Amino acid sequence: MSEDTDTPPDAHDPVGSGGLERREELRGRRPGDRVVKIVRPPAFRRTEGGFTATEKALETRGRVSHLVERTRRLLIGRRLATEEEHLERVSKKVGLAIFASDNISSSAYATEEAMRILALAGAGFVAALTMPLTVAIVVVLAIVVLSYQQVIRAYPQGGGSYIVASENLGVFPGLIAASALVVDYFLTVAVSVAAGVAAITSAAPELFPHRVLISVATVVLLTTGNLRGLREAGRIFAVPTYIYLFSMFGLLALGLWRVATGDVPAAPPPIEAFPPEGMQAFTVLLLLRAFASGSVALTGTEAVANGVQAFKSDESWNARVVLILMGTFFATIFLGISFLSTTIGIQPDLSETETVNSLLTRSLVGTSWYFYLVQGATAILLVLAANTAFNGFPRLASIMAVDRFMPRQFAQRGDRLAFSTGIIALAAVSSFLIVAYNASVTGLIPLYTVGVFIAFTLSQTGMVRHWMRERGRGWHASAVINGLGAIATGLVAIIVAVSKFEAGAWMVVAILPVLVAMLWGIHRHYRGIEDRLLIASTVPVRLQIAHPRIIVPISRIDRASLRALAIAKGLGGEVYAVHISFDAEGAKAFKQRWRQVVGDAIALDTIISPYRALMAPLLKYIDAIDRGDHSRPVIVVLAEFVPRHWWEQVLHNQTALLLKLRLFVRPNTAVLDVPYHLGDADPLDVEADKVRR
Amino acid sequence: MSEDTDTPPDAHDPVGSGGLERREELRGRRPGDRVVKIVRPPAFRRTEGGFTATEKALETRGRVSHLVERTRRLLIGRRLATEEEHLERVSKKVGLAIFASDNISSSAYATEEAMRILALAGAGFVAALTMPLTVAIVVVLAIVVLSYQQVIRAYPQGGGSYIVASENLGVFPGLIAASALVVDYFLTVAVSVAAGVAAITSAAPELFPHRVLISVATVVLLTTGNLRGLREAGRIFAVPTYIYLFSMFGLLALGLWRVATGDVPAAPPPIEAFPPEGMQAFTVLLLLRAFASGSVALTGTEAVANGVQAFKSDESWNARVVLILMGTFFATIFLGISFLSTTIGIQPDLSETETVNSLLTRSLVGTSWYFYLVQGATAILLVLAANTAFNGFPRLASIMAVDRFMPRQFAQRGDRLAFSTGIIALAAVSSFLIVAYNASVTGLIPLYTVGVFIAFTLSQTGMVRHWMRERGRGWHASAVINGLGAIATGLVAIIVAVSKFEAGAWMVVAILPVLVAMLWGIHRHYRGIEDRLLIASTVPVRLQIAHPRIIVPISRIDRASLRALAIAKGLGGEVYAVHISFDAEGAKAFKQRWRQVVGDAIALDTIISPYRALMAPLLKYIDAIDRGDHSRPVIVVLAEFVPRHWWEQVLHNQTALLLKLRLFVRPNTAVLDVPYHLGDADPLDVEADKVRR
Repeated sequence: MSEDTDTPPDAHDPVGSGGLERREELRGRRPGDRVVKIVRPPAFRRTEGGFTATEKALETRGRVSHLVERTRRLLIGRRLATEEEHLERVSKKVGLAIFASDNISSSAYATEEAMRILALAGAGFVAALTMPLTVAIVVVLAIVVLSYQQVIRAYPQGGGSYIVASENLGVFPGLIAASALVVDYFLTVAVSVAAGVAAITSAAPELFPHRVLISVATVVLLTTGNLRGLREAGRIFAVPTYIYLFSMFGLLALGLWRVATGDVPAAPPPIEAFPPEGMQAFTVLLLLRAFASGSVALTGTEAVANGVQAFKSDESWNARVVLILMGTFFATIFLGISFLSTTIGIQPDLSETETVNSLLTRSLVGTSWYFYLVQGATAILLVLAANTAFNGFPRLASIMAVDRFMPRQFAQRGDRLAFSTGIIALAAVSSFLIVAYNASVTGLIPLYTVGVFIAFTLSQTGMVRHWMRERGRGWHASAVINGLGAIATGLVAIIVAVSKFEAGAWMVVAILPVLVAMLWGIHRHYRGIEDRLLIASTVPVRLQIAHPRIIVPISRIDRASLRALAIAKGLGGEVYAVHISFDAEGAKAFKQRWRQVVGDAIALDTIISPYRALMAPLLKYIDAIDRGDHSRPVIVVLAEFVPRHWWEQVLHNQTALLLKLRLFVRPNTAVLDVPYHLGDADPLDVEADKVRR
Repeated sequence: MSEDTDTPPDAHDPVGSGGLERREELRGRRPGDRVVKIVRPPAFRRTEGGFTATEKALETRGRVSHLVERTRRLLIGRRLATEEEHLERVSKKVGLAIFASDNISSSAYATEEAMRILALAGAGFVAALTMPLTVAIVVVLAIVVLSYQQVIRAYPQGGGSYIVASENLGVFPGLIAASALVVDYFLTVAVSVAAGVAAITSAAPELFPHRVLISVATVVLLTTGNLRGLREAGRIFAVPTYIYLFSMFGLLALGLWRVATGDVPAAPPPIEAFPPEGMQAFTVLLLLRAFASGSVALTGTEAVANGVQAFKSDESWNARVVLILMGTFFATIFLGISFLSTTIGIQPDLSETETVNSLLTRSLVGTSWYFYLVQGATAILLVLAANTAFNGFPRLASIMAVDRFMPRQFAQRGDRLAFSTGIIALAAVSSFLIVAYNASVTGLIPLYTVGVFIAFTLSQTGMVRHWMRERGRGWHASAVINGLGAIATGLVAIIVAVSKFEAGAWMVVAILPVLVAMLWGIHRHYRGIEDRLLIASTVPVRLQIAHPRIIVPISRIDRASLRALAIAKGLGGEVYAVHISFDAEGAKAFKQRWRQVVGDAIALDTIISPYRALMAPLLKYIDAIDRGDHSRPVIVVLAEFVPRHWWEQVLHNQTALLLKLRLFVRPNTAVLDVPYHLGDADPLDVEADKVRR
């Protein structure tokens, strides 16, 4: 066979010597012998045991496709070879920006979310309870971060909740975790983008009517950035993250300095204050709601554990460092904001016009350039939180596609080694959510965060099982940490689900079984097919050649149908040509012409269809020729004319299209489509053609 | 060949004796010899020189298609054979109802339309000028009827404006006439149905919000009736026409009797009278507008001449009698209504709440059962006017499709011998117009009647040319009659176009060139293709057998792809199997498995695609194998898995579909689609299969 010979690929050139080749073929040479001479540079180069397609093989012809290709390159850059994958991996610095933006951006609103619930009970509760609640949430975060440290160590190949839950708890807990995460990824994009755009439209109200359009355009921008691949996306998105981090640290340092020196500024009054005596009684449920609202801060923690393989080596170590850094940065900013806000005595704004962070910044630095720096960085970072989902979802989907719980396209890397299908699917669904909810943050937020805590709980429970099974060194401590994590996140999940149930969390709870059923359905489908199609490697098999019966329906004797006949006859089997007429005269005229043009070479059957049906008698004729002999497939040869313009297609081939659809489901039947283009070889004798021209 | 033998079709039965057959084949017997034994009753019966498909050949299998078939039979009845066409022809009695309903129904509003314009100048003008205008219109109608008598005599095959104009004036006048008629047919349906439904909703105002839905449902009803075929449609639609005719004649006889005996009733006052002194000055333009409004009465005259072939023999005679009857009946009613209305002194109602006909009927018979009979029959007949278009348009379209100015589907007769495509296209476009104009008669009416008079003028002018060319006996008289017709209808066309131009007639004038260009484009396309495809019958041709190169892309070794390989190998040409891997390990593993399963039977090429592209390297590989040798086509064999449910299709074959689209336009390339169903023959050795089970 060709792959065993050592002939240099471009040594011989028999191109055009058709006669010679056919003689070679008749002498019984195996076809493979000649491939070496034909498949060669520049499109292919010869590699050990086969060919490798070069970049030349991807070149396109034609003006339109050339334009498409240039636009593609402009938008997402040159193609990357699979072996360049390691070049796409990211450092800790970039990784922090990519995977931590969602989590760190929560610090922009976590304090306020908790305060707003406490303010319902009165200003005193805000002052007294904001700090304790912040500390409680940071403790939960610490537990989660520690738990995920263990997850990364145990699953260096990438340990999302889906993998951990399905490996340790079983397929269905895994699918529940995956579905919960998928819902949350979609919502992360929709909520973050809508929130970022809301920040823009509150600064420029004339843009408010276009908020849906701006939001969708932002999603498209994020999609394009992510299709460029991980490293470039990281490079684009790293700057705002670091500006936010540094500006916040500066602000907090200044604030602590002024508190330490006793120079505490006055709290600017909110536009519309909550009534200081409160609007409802303080209850445990209210406290829990405040906790649930603040715990939005924990979203995005999963991302690092999911994306371990995106880091340069040592992957596991880099991921763990990034996770710790993320937790530390977030906790510092969160604690700092809560401490300074309560110390200064800032109260949330009932009208939602100005954020607590904005009030805090204003009280510390006034409406200076620094104020605008902090606010601008915050707005951009809120939008970039969506980027975490753009990294999380495609990775999760690709892992699930490999496990055959998702359509297999999700496992394929695109031109830039990103999981393009996942990125585009995420963009499509989140754009749909934005349009459906009219880009309203208030409408979307109650659906958010339930999913992530369900996934956390399942994953931490899975880790407990993992340690109990492994019983490696120090498994007790590890199991306790993950057990604590499971309990903490489980409690938060229940609190969030209960306190937000009526506002929209019920939708998430309702959709989970549907998603799980869908994922399972996809899996069962693929598995069922593989059971049918795959051949056990232990079974000795031998290919049995099938000798088909060939049927050529001919509606008119013209160059297109003669070409189909010429090819059908060239296949060398039994050929049945059949013509359907609506009346006897038509059949007679057709046979006369047939005798003139085709003669005896191929036998013709004519069928008169008095009810003017074409499809039904033809199918019955095929049945008659087929006779259910399973060892002999039927090939139906269809001549199709290809018009010059695609829209002319509507004037042709309607019958052929219907017939193809119908034959596609007919057992033991294959369809040979013979298109006729203007430039195709003419099936008529060369001499006859000469006479004509 | 089979069609020359005399073997009784069911004498031998070799079904199942596959081995025997193959031996026969190897002995070199022509395949046709055996068809006689296989193609046989009950699905086929043997007729002189071929087979005829019986009704059994149309039987369907499967529950869904059985249900569809039963619904179809229930709605439109059993299938009719082409030879039953003469049974579908209609008598003069039914023909009058089918082809005259549009014209006769105009008598319900023609008088009023003319009166309403005259009333703008004052009540005196109504009283003085209604009768003269009516007579003038009847004179034009008489000229048109006489002209069409001549058309029918000259074109007994059906002489619509299109045929007459294109045969005598040239292709483009013919196309203009056809386009004008097509526009008018669409509008006839939309206007008639909207007017009929308006009559219903003015009686039952609670139905007004549903008028669009009721209108479209009426169109669907008319469509179903017409799909049942001409005779049945005639039977359904004849009754209301005759009720209208008899009740109107009764009413007019009573009115004339009372006028003759001096017992003239008092005119009931209209709900809201026009100001008796008039609203604007009386001008020639106003008179012309009144004439244009009244000449809506001439629409529908074309139908009889177009449908000559729908009559029983003697077709020409029957059509002419029906045309004369139609003109006489219409003129009688029109003159009668105008005479009685002006004699009694009825004035039109400014608020459009009650029609002149209703006022006249009420004044003669009071609000009795007879009043309701006349009003009911009028409402139904108004809707049935649409039916004339349902007969006219499909016939016109079928004639144009034969001439290749319309897609050829329009020339095919459906199960009931009606031109189904035309009927459905008419229903679709007119429903669209109804929805677009919100079923408003006022919005639609200005577009109406321009087209019909343009077509009339062209057709009559064509007839003058016809007589001048023929110069048969009495050609002078004939030419004068048609010349008069051309002048009269031409004048009406100009009057209608000018007086209605701003209100909407401009749209019709603007769309005509577009339609003509479209029809011509379709014609040029079909003609261009035939020039390329058809073979002159004088040229001696001989089929040259093409020996294709066969390429089988294999993505995975499974039963589906092995089946494709088995069939490809069975075709007996050069077979190239090719596999594309993303990396070297994949290629190596694949080759190992290939050697195990397929062995040396078919040579394999493996291509490594480092950029993860499938399509581009495969196309380049096909290019390499093809080498542009025009005499040897390339066949690409694609294995496709057919899932159990159609919606599972989305999980499969995406690459195959894209590849098929791409290869469809590749020169000299055919695609063999090998679907794999669960029940298909297994390509593996029987023994291997036994081991497995």
